[in-house]
Amino acid sequence: MERSLDDVIKNNLSGNELKEFNRIYYGRTEHCELKIKNSTKDAGVKYNFDVLGFSFIASKEQLREPRILRLGLVQHSIVLSTDKPINQQRQAIFNKIERIIEAAASEEVKVLCLQETWSMPFFLCTRERKRWADFAESPDDGPSTKFLSKLAKRFEIIIISPILENEDGVWWNTAVVINEQGNYVGKHRKNHLPSVGSFNETTYYAPGNTNHPVFDTKYGKIAVNICYGRHHALNWLMFALNGAEIVFNPSATISEFGESFWGIEARNAAIANGYVTAPNGLRTPGLPKNRDGLLIVEVDLNQCRQVKDQWGFHMTSRLDLYADNLQKVVEN
Amino acid sequence: MERSLDDVIKNNLSGNELKEFNRIYYGRTEHCELKIKNSTKDAGVKYNFDVLGFSFIASKEQLREPRILRLGLVQHSIVLSTDKPINQQRQAIFNKIERIIEAAASEEVKVLCLQETWSMPFFLCTRERKRWADFAESPDDGPSTKFLSKLAKRFEIIIISPILENEDGVWWNTAVVINEQGNYVGKHRKNHLPSVGSFNETTYYAPGNTNHPVFDTKYGKIAVNICYGRHHALNWLMFALNGAEIVFNPSATISEFGESFWGIEARNAAIANGYVTAPNGLRTPGLPKNRDGLLIVEVDLNQCRQVKDQWGFHMTSRLDLYADNLQKVVEN
Repeated sequence: MERSLDDVIKNNLSGNELKEFNRIYYGRTEHCELKIKNSTKDAGVKYNFDVLGFSFIASKEQLREPRILRLGLVQHSIVLSTDKPINQQRQAIFNKIERIIEAAASEEVKVLCLQETWSMPFFLCTRERKRWADFAESPDDGPSTKFLSKLAKRFEIIIISPILENEDGVWWNTAVVINEQGNYVGKHRKNHLPSVGSFNETTYYAPGNTNHPVFDTKYGKIAVNICYGRHHALNWLMFALNGAEIVFNPSATISEFGESFWGIEARNAAIANGYVTAPNGLRTPGLPKNRDGLLIVEVDLNQCRQVKDQWGFHMTSRLDLYADNLQKVVEN
Repeated sequence: MERSLDDVIKNNLSGNELKEFNRIYYGRTEHCELKIKNSTKDAGVKYNFDVLGFSFIASKEQLREPRILRLGLVQHSIVLSTDKPINQQRQAIFNKIERIIEAAASEEVKVLCLQETWSMPFFLCTRERKRWADFAESPDDGPSTKFLSKLAKRFEIIIISPILENEDGVWWNTAVVINEQGNYVGKHRKNHLPSVGSFNETTYYAPGNTNHPVFDTKYGKIAVNICYGRHHALNWLMFALNGAEIVFNPSATISEFGESFWGIEARNAAIANGYVTAPNGLRTPGLPKNRDGLLIVEVDLNQCRQVKDQWGFHMTSRLDLYADNLQKVVEN
């Protein structure tokens, strides 16, 4: 199994040196691990997925109650080989994901995000289109949304479902938001499409036209920055300006595509824009890279404003200056 | 001596685990250390400063010659106690800096950046003003500029000199650019001023009014993002849109002010905006935290365009969308 940076550190550092590394790299000297139930651990062993959980603490406030919330992130491989019928391939993924969502629900996760185009092989690296076309689906009543709606309702959790969308023959890379009643709430289409070497997503779909929606849900104000959009500071910024408290970044990528950036970009965006996780610069260890897994993070959404009040990045942002500057750039 | 993350790693990891850590954290499995001359090492021992040097390599191109260049970054403490006469305090810093610049020049550094308000104690945390006022100086013919102009001319190097500016009774936090002929080229005034807890720089000076200048010098197109401006993605972006190939971020800060961000923000900006160091996500180890030091980085400025061509972040930036979005935000 490939080692992660987290593993390398855990296996080699100890005592004050480990604390000092943690202080600088993760932003605190000790990880606050969540206690995972034995039944969840058993499910992980039985169905072969990892479960990790960590918490971030905010300060107590005089006027607001804490807004403590558990978020879940899921990573998984496909199940069947890609020459099998599409409905069988998809159903096998559904079966796998159902078990992970059950585990998340039993750990009190309230908002769960699946990976980019989670219900299909990530065929967008193949340059082929026709043989995969039936994986594209409707965001509001396609098979992935129908499947997840039942689970969302049963467990009263919000699910972010990144799929390949087909709307009247136009494909999009789309994140669907399903609320805790199992209802389709809305969608966001990936704003920035990679064209890196021979890997070109514009072969498949158009740059998103949904701008930067923020979904005001029972559990918080949620946005989704899909994959390559994480490289674009203005993309992160607009979700913040539209009020996001939580921004997910579902991705499908490989080590050669910027692994050394992974620990930097989303965390930098959270710091710059004051949303979880983690506006105060903290990060958790990650899941092992080559296995299915569920990462749980307990946050207090009060932290978003607390960090803005502490650092003042929003107060000092001078957006009027930049609005003018950008206008001049695009007019030239 | 306080340990750095770099030290902790160097002292505890080895073999494949060290390589894997380096690959993910620094962006490459091995640091490419520059060979430092014995005379430079001797100077470092004699005058008590560290010297570290690393190189980044770009690809060979068919149509452009390499643009290999050595950059220098200097950190230093003050010399005399702050109750001594101001001219003595400043002269003692000048004497110290002269030796470090001599060392940089002997290592073929062509562009050198000093730390924020390098020629005075960083008194901006004291909330006092009057007793320090004589440290504020003219950017084009003040003592710091006069002193550095001679060295810049003698060694044919460009020097970035961040000072406290006083212009007709208005104070600014200003970076002066002095070219390799010893001439004053221009200045940039800090755009974003921190107001964090009781630490409030607006007590002293105004937010910069120089927008985002890029200085087109003999050795490259240079910009300066001063200290707290590193938290602002749009600040970094505008220097890029104005053509910067190198952006320095001279800072004076303490561990409590976001040490866990230090390794993230400037590096994220270099990735997002395609300028050194390091547009491809690499970073070097840093200097020890509590000693004077000179960090030398050898770069090939061709890498800026190479990385833009590889990753396409500029091509996919959709600036027209964001210019509109920001305009709407500031109009509301």
